[in-house]
Amino acid sequence: MKRDLDRLMQERGLDAAIVWGTVKGNSTMSYIVNGAKLSHVMVVKKRGQDPILFCGTMEREEAEESGLPVVDTSKYNYRKIMEDAGGDRLKAAVAYYKTILSEVGVTGKVAFYGLGGIGRNWLLLRALDDAIPEITITGEFDDDIFLTARRTKEPEEIERIKAVGRKTCEVVQHVIDYLKSHRLDGDALVRSDGSPVTVGDCKAEIRLELAKRMLIEEVDTIFAIGRDAGIPHSRGNDADPIEAGKTIVFDIFPQEQGGGYFFDMTRTFVVGKASPEILEAYRQLEECFDTVSAKLEAGAKAAQYQTQICDCFEKQGHETIRTNPQVTNGYVHSLGHGIGLDVHENPRLSDFPGIDDTLEPGSVFTFEPGLYYPDKGYGMRIEDVYVVTESNEVVNLTNFPRDLVVKI
Amino acid sequence: MKRDLDRLMQERGLDAAIVWGTVKGNSTMSYIVNGAKLSHVMVVKKRGQDPILFCGTMEREEAEESGLPVVDTSKYNYRKIMEDAGGDRLKAAVAYYKTILSEVGVTGKVAFYGLGGIGRNWLLLRALDDAIPEITITGEFDDDIFLTARRTKEPEEIERIKAVGRKTCEVVQHVIDYLKSHRLDGDALVRSDGSPVTVGDCKAEIRLELAKRMLIEEVDTIFAIGRDAGIPHSRGNDADPIEAGKTIVFDIFPQEQGGGYFFDMTRTFVVGKASPEILEAYRQLEECFDTVSAKLEAGAKAAQYQTQICDCFEKQGHETIRTNPQVTNGYVHSLGHGIGLDVHENPRLSDFPGIDDTLEPGSVFTFEPGLYYPDKGYGMRIEDVYVVTESNEVVNLTNFPRDLVVKI
Repeated sequence: MKRDLDRLMQERGLDAAIVWGTVKGNSTMSYIVNGAKLSHVMVVKKRGQDPILFCGTMEREEAEESGLPVVDTSKYNYRKIMEDAGGDRLKAAVAYYKTILSEVGVTGKVAFYGLGGIGRNWLLLRALDDAIPEITITGEFDDDIFLTARRTKEPEEIERIKAVGRKTCEVVQHVIDYLKSHRLDGDALVRSDGSPVTVGDCKAEIRLELAKRMLIEEVDTIFAIGRDAGIPHSRGNDADPIEAGKTIVFDIFPQEQGGGYFFDMTRTFVVGKASPEILEAYRQLEECFDTVSAKLEAGAKAAQYQTQICDCFEKQGHETIRTNPQVTNGYVHSLGHGIGLDVHENPRLSDFPGIDDTLEPGSVFTFEPGLYYPDKGYGMRIEDVYVVTESNEVVNLTNFPRDLVVKI
Repeated sequence: MKRDLDRLMQERGLDAAIVWGTVKGNSTMSYIVNGAKLSHVMVVKKRGQDPILFCGTMEREEAEESGLPVVDTSKYNYRKIMEDAGGDRLKAAVAYYKTILSEVGVTGKVAFYGLGGIGRNWLLLRALDDAIPEITITGEFDDDIFLTARRTKEPEEIERIKAVGRKTCEVVQHVIDYLKSHRLDGDALVRSDGSPVTVGDCKAEIRLELAKRMLIEEVDTIFAIGRDAGIPHSRGNDADPIEAGKTIVFDIFPQEQGGGYFFDMTRTFVVGKASPEILEAYRQLEECFDTVSAKLEAGAKAAQYQTQICDCFEKQGHETIRTNPQVTNGYVHSLGHGIGLDVHENPRLSDFPGIDDTLEPGSVFTFEPGLYYPDKGYGMRIEDVYVVTESNEVVNLTNFPRDLVVKI
């Protein structure tokens, strides 16, 4: 949570944290400016003090929404700085930031955060490090103070995730109703005029229903049928017809418009009737889902659940990524990930060297086992979101049935 | 254009260019992988050679869409690298990239591009520079080789921008029709039940119409009325009612879904009837628009048009940003910018130290003069997109009327 930032800075010996970049697409910036709809700004946080927001005159009204003290950067007169630098933009940028950091009294160990051009910012930080003797630039490679603080959510953040979740469930229900509104002609789902309903048609419905609810797709929703459902990353092929008996993996992870909180859930459907093989695989998937999710508890190491789910699937006779890192038929990925301002954040329910996350009060994360048999033309996944409450309960936030068969 | 990359690398003494990051939101990556829908990948381009795409097994099918030679990174066994690094992720990342760069034979001056965590990548580049004696890391601060190559577009890129433009015009027409479908009750635009039509209602229409056309809003469309129309960055307030006689600035700049090309156009509307003052200001805006846009020509310095538009507005008696850099009433911004995979790119029609762009065959750019009087409660802007053709003609790509008054 945000209140952890000062403690984390203390523990890591940081005197100041500086966040650069746009707000959109830059979750660290979005977090520190409390979601204010700004374009390209800078935030300076000295340890033990409130962050200060630096932005241009034109965005003064949006800046107020951040609740942070705001400095209008027009007073630094960038045109004059550029003239003094003879049009050399790197030189001008160094002069500009040097002025600001000196004015705010930033000294000591300083780390930079946020999203930006990789080579460009490497040059700029190197030049700033040389130009300002009062500061020593340092960096954090992974699990930085912001990502660490964001491992646990405040109640208001959880409410926003829940609200996105409710809307997401409405969209999933809409798609089920859309499928049901058609008829089968042999194995093909068709319109009243006999033309086939396709993956692209379903995706168009999803897009519109999300837009109606002020939600966006950061990247394409997964709506993959048959063999594609057996490849976890496949987003599905628009031209594919919806056919009875094939599994459809529908993994939807929308974000609040303008760059906000995500939700993330997956349901697997078979239109019409499922084969005994698919029914049995789905029964096994549900069995492992229920067995392992029942053991989720506050304070537990997240990686252990990946071990448990592999145990469960292997006992059923499936190959897993634990026994074969290159596996493509069986259980082939990690069990889950935190969600928040990024669709993938901490804690990670992965068994991987260097990952040592714990489920803590305020953790919000997905739990998403799946079974994939692309060679047999099917795949399936169930994904719910869980939160660990302040009273150490683990609560499922995905209030949606997981019936496999969509009867037509 | 892409074929300029080798020449630019030669001119700037670069032996290799490496692009990192996601594809979504990272226009440099999107450019080099030809829009392939990948998640997080790496591209290595040695001077004089085709770029090579490095990506994971799960994205092998999407990677093929790039048309680039692909290396499956699973062969490097990152789990083993992490184990060898004792779970130290920076150390593991250095070992991983060192292996790849050595395998591809990257030596000499190497620059990094793409979007990533600022502090994280500064640490990583510093460590790579130390760990690989065969390379010297350098950077480009602005107008890097990719941004420079992208100053001019290939015919296929121009066709895609045109296609987005056609759809954007459809959405603008839809909004006009939507406004016209209501009635006035005094100055208020109302539904048949008498309830007011708001900015939020119009934005909801825009969102849906864009979604239907596979277009997305990277950030909120500007639909600002009255005083807000007088503040160029204001996106408009959802609760504001649509009222007769007030200017509405409608600036729409959608992008192809999944991270592709943008269009960008602005129209100003007054519902019902416009006051003589607003009509006269609009006449003056159109006069300056037509006078200066008629002089756009291939080979010209882009900054001169900012000077010309200031000349025109000042002759009419308006204050401009040239006479007063802090101006808020009059003409307050730059005249235009290139568009492509970013909504703002080169060439820039700005008069600013260090900017020296030229209109060249293949340049695609906006031309968007405006007049802003927030203190008087109005603002107006007209924005069209132009292309310089291979035969040196300047062609307007915004085939849409610019009538101010929307009669109800």
